[in-house]
Amino acid sequence: MAMEPLASTPAPPYYAVIFSSLRTADDAEDQAVMAEQMATLAAGQAGLLGVETPRYAQGVGIAVFCWDSMESIWRWGRHAEHRIAQQGGRYRWYECFRLRVCRVEEDRAFGRGDGAGV
Amino acid sequence: MAMEPLASTPAPPYYAVIFSSLRTADDAEDQAVMAEQMATLAAGQAGLLGVETPRYAQGVGIAVFCWDSMESIWRWGRHAEHRIAQQGGRYRWYECFRLRVCRVEEDRAFGRGDGAGV
Repeated sequence: MAMEPLASTPAPPYYAVIFSSLRTADDAEDQAVMAEQMATLAAGQAGLLGVETPRYAQGVGIAVFCWDSMESIWRWGRHAEHRIAQQGGRYRWYECFRLRVCRVEEDRAFGRGDGAGV
Repeated sequence: MAMEPLASTPAPPYYAVIFSSLRTADDAEDQAVMAEQMATLAAGQAGLLGVETPRYAQGVGIAVFCWDSMESIWRWGRHAEHRIAQQGGRYRWYECFRLRVCRVEEDRAFGRGDGAGV
């Protein structure tokens, strides 16, 4: 699956995990490498529809992972390499983080100058 | 409502709008001012539960707005000042953007070293 800046997700309904985090001051480079590895690893999992993982100027960041089902989210949560990254996330890289699991009801894409109403 | 780095949202269900965008090269300062104004304005609207609007190192960004209902989202979409900002968004500030409207089913917060399983 191509890693695009904005994920070309299908028509809803589908599911999204919003991962919001506040980084610690330490290990910024390690954290960036890990985040990149996890996005690449997630992109290879069954049921992954798209990933958006911007780079941040400061400590707060948001990444969005779109999935076809709650089952796929559950399976990714228990993936072995992802479990190891979760430990790093909990003890080293983040002061705090929040995971929101959502059912996506609407998904609209706009290009520059598109006339459609938001 | 306090503007925290990570929004202290209530127990689900509630609704979230994920705004993903790819900025144009121009008007970065104008865009940042507008984004800040819109986050502040949204925070004063009925039904807004929390906002997360990180600053980005590069052109791709994600902001999350949490609301109590679809009706509140609809009302905010039609707010007069927000409508003006939408025009700037469509013609000047973004190459493209995506709006995903979601029903949040799970919301879990973690502090550093928390033992709970993800």
